[in-house]
Amino acid sequence: MPTPAVILDRSRLQANCERMAQRAAHAGVSLRPHLKTAKSAEVARIATAGQTGGITVSTLAELAYFFDAGFRDMTYAVGIVPSKLPAIARFIEQGARINVVLDSVRAADEIAGHAGAPIPVLIEIDCGGHRAGVAPESSELIDIAERIASAPGLRLEGVLTHAGHSYHAADAAARGEIAIAERDAALRAAERIRGAGMSCPTVSIGSTPTALTDISLDGVTEIRPGVYVFFDLSQARLGVCGVDDIAVSVLATVIGHHREAGHLLVDAGALALSKDISANEYDPQVGYGLVCDIDGQPVEGLHVADVHQEHGFVRSAAGDLPFDRFPVGTQLRILPNHACMTVAPYREYHVLDAGSARLTKWSKTYGW
Amino acid sequence: MPTPAVILDRSRLQANCERMAQRAAHAGVSLRPHLKTAKSAEVARIATAGQTGGITVSTLAELAYFFDAGFRDMTYAVGIVPSKLPAIARFIEQGARINVVLDSVRAADEIAGHAGAPIPVLIEIDCGGHRAGVAPESSELIDIAERIASAPGLRLEGVLTHAGHSYHAADAAARGEIAIAERDAALRAAERIRGAGMSCPTVSIGSTPTALTDISLDGVTEIRPGVYVFFDLSQARLGVCGVDDIAVSVLATVIGHHREAGHLLVDAGALALSKDISANEYDPQVGYGLVCDIDGQPVEGLHVADVHQEHGFVRSAAGDLPFDRFPVGTQLRILPNHACMTVAPYREYHVLDAGSARLTKWSKTYGW
Repeated sequence: MPTPAVILDRSRLQANCERMAQRAAHAGVSLRPHLKTAKSAEVARIATAGQTGGITVSTLAELAYFFDAGFRDMTYAVGIVPSKLPAIARFIEQGARINVVLDSVRAADEIAGHAGAPIPVLIEIDCGGHRAGVAPESSELIDIAERIASAPGLRLEGVLTHAGHSYHAADAAARGEIAIAERDAALRAAERIRGAGMSCPTVSIGSTPTALTDISLDGVTEIRPGVYVFFDLSQARLGVCGVDDIAVSVLATVIGHHREAGHLLVDAGALALSKDISANEYDPQVGYGLVCDIDGQPVEGLHVADVHQEHGFVRSAAGDLPFDRFPVGTQLRILPNHACMTVAPYREYHVLDAGSARLTKWSKTYGW
Repeated sequence: MPTPAVILDRSRLQANCERMAQRAAHAGVSLRPHLKTAKSAEVARIATAGQTGGITVSTLAELAYFFDAGFRDMTYAVGIVPSKLPAIARFIEQGARINVVLDSVRAADEIAGHAGAPIPVLIEIDCGGHRAGVAPESSELIDIAERIASAPGLRLEGVLTHAGHSYHAADAAARGEIAIAERDAALRAAERIRGAGMSCPTVSIGSTPTALTDISLDGVTEIRPGVYVFFDLSQARLGVCGVDDIAVSVLATVIGHHREAGHLLVDAGALALSKDISANEYDPQVGYGLVCDIDGQPVEGLHVADVHQEHGFVRSAAGDLPFDRFPVGTQLRILPNHACMTVAPYREYHVLDAGSARLTKWSKTYGW
């Protein structure tokens, strides 16, 4: 098989999805998986098994792809702007339910004039990550809610928050504190909206690191984790999973040896792996990815130390590089720092089933 | 127009291509542009105007795309491995000339048994970047040349080198020295192959920073620069171009304000801009890209300071952020650090013509 390509381990994917489904079931909340990670209908069907079927997306390309694949309940979780409304309205007219997200009166004003069936709107809450969202105690929260509730083209659906800063939690205790802050910010915002006489049916939180704590989620209605379907080195370094839970790897081929410089080259570089090095925050020897043999077993100390566009430089952090073990033409598998970034540009997955030598192709979308 | 999207300024592209074509003409060498940057047939036609029509590519997807677009002379400039030969042989059977690249006797052995028309092979030379290639004075160079020359399935076409380390040159003098080293390494390797009684018709060098020096290229037959078609902030910081020569920008929309945190959010994040921050090596205030208004004029101090998957955080390095100038819904254009990385995942270009309000779509390939 030509490389680079993404290999997906079906049994690990299945186990990861079951783990999150059980967490949601035990907590009494719906699971609305964020498909920005996998961008794949086959993965989405596994991730939504036993759930309501609702998913989360981050691009119009994902919205169109999942609509074509039969998904009819999607939250587009990036702040809505008017230029994206025509595409969204088209899916709504065809029977889909698309929740949109915003965090200002201005943004609500911009889409309030929308003609056609009312669009359900979630107000984004800042739970401490300070990316987007209004503070749960802010006066703007009520202003936005009232603006939505009074616009004929909109319907106030609830509140949504995302604890992205959990990706940088120092330890399990810090992660737990962020999970509590995330939950409490969303609950408090919902309480204030209801206290002002408006309905707030949805209380949506979620990120993989915070979802995988055991705090009570009473009052929360859904979680929206994404990267858990695959996991990656960043999640492993956070302690959220083990390295042997990681379901995706980049298949690469050794294309050269440079004995003097102490590296071998593979045909997976900056585009095939991405330039994300987030796991190095916890372990600086991860580089652009950990190198495994063709069976997926990590090779002690082997990592991608540098990348050019289509070249990866594999070095050893454990003594001399075993050049003779990996002659030109050898295929290797590289575990990614951040699965969402790594798999995004690929056109498809090659799915590995235990006990079968054949790989199955699964579809995915890409781009915008 | 929904965002993110890549805007391509046709007049800047044209000027950049003319500049490199003139450099090649003055130096008396062919220009074989590296289309790993643009991945677009429309761009390739402009870049090869007045040339032999030969191009350079870095993936099998590019090879197939450019073959379909009518290109028949391509160098696949990533070390060849057997798993890629069937695809390459298929294009050769259909009348294309595909040069492949390798740097070891082992790699030559791996493809020597190839049946069908002989494949032209370039030996990769290390000119100091220490990525791939053999040293021009090495005994291995002659061993490889002899192995290729004696294999019925192969034909020794020449030598190829790439001074990738020129991207990190401290100043123009250092860049000039790298250009000389690049040229001399290729010339010396060719001289040794010829001295051993073999022919070496092609002497191929090239990177944008080294091609845009004024050294003599006597003895060189072709140059293979790539990023010059678009240029980017890295090239501007190297002094190879001006910021106003950069032909590509990412069109993004303001999706939120976070006044307390001091940023506005745009819908161009880590995937839309890439995580490449190479220009920060020279100017740490570039971040993930410089922000321009919709007309392409840089806004003093405005840059993308951080990125999440589909979110970019715009901050100001020149005092307070002018929130009121950029309300939610405003479109901005972001100049990339490294054009090759930024444009790669997009499905198409939107081409801006001077004096026209309409954007034209140009095709491109992506993935592998």
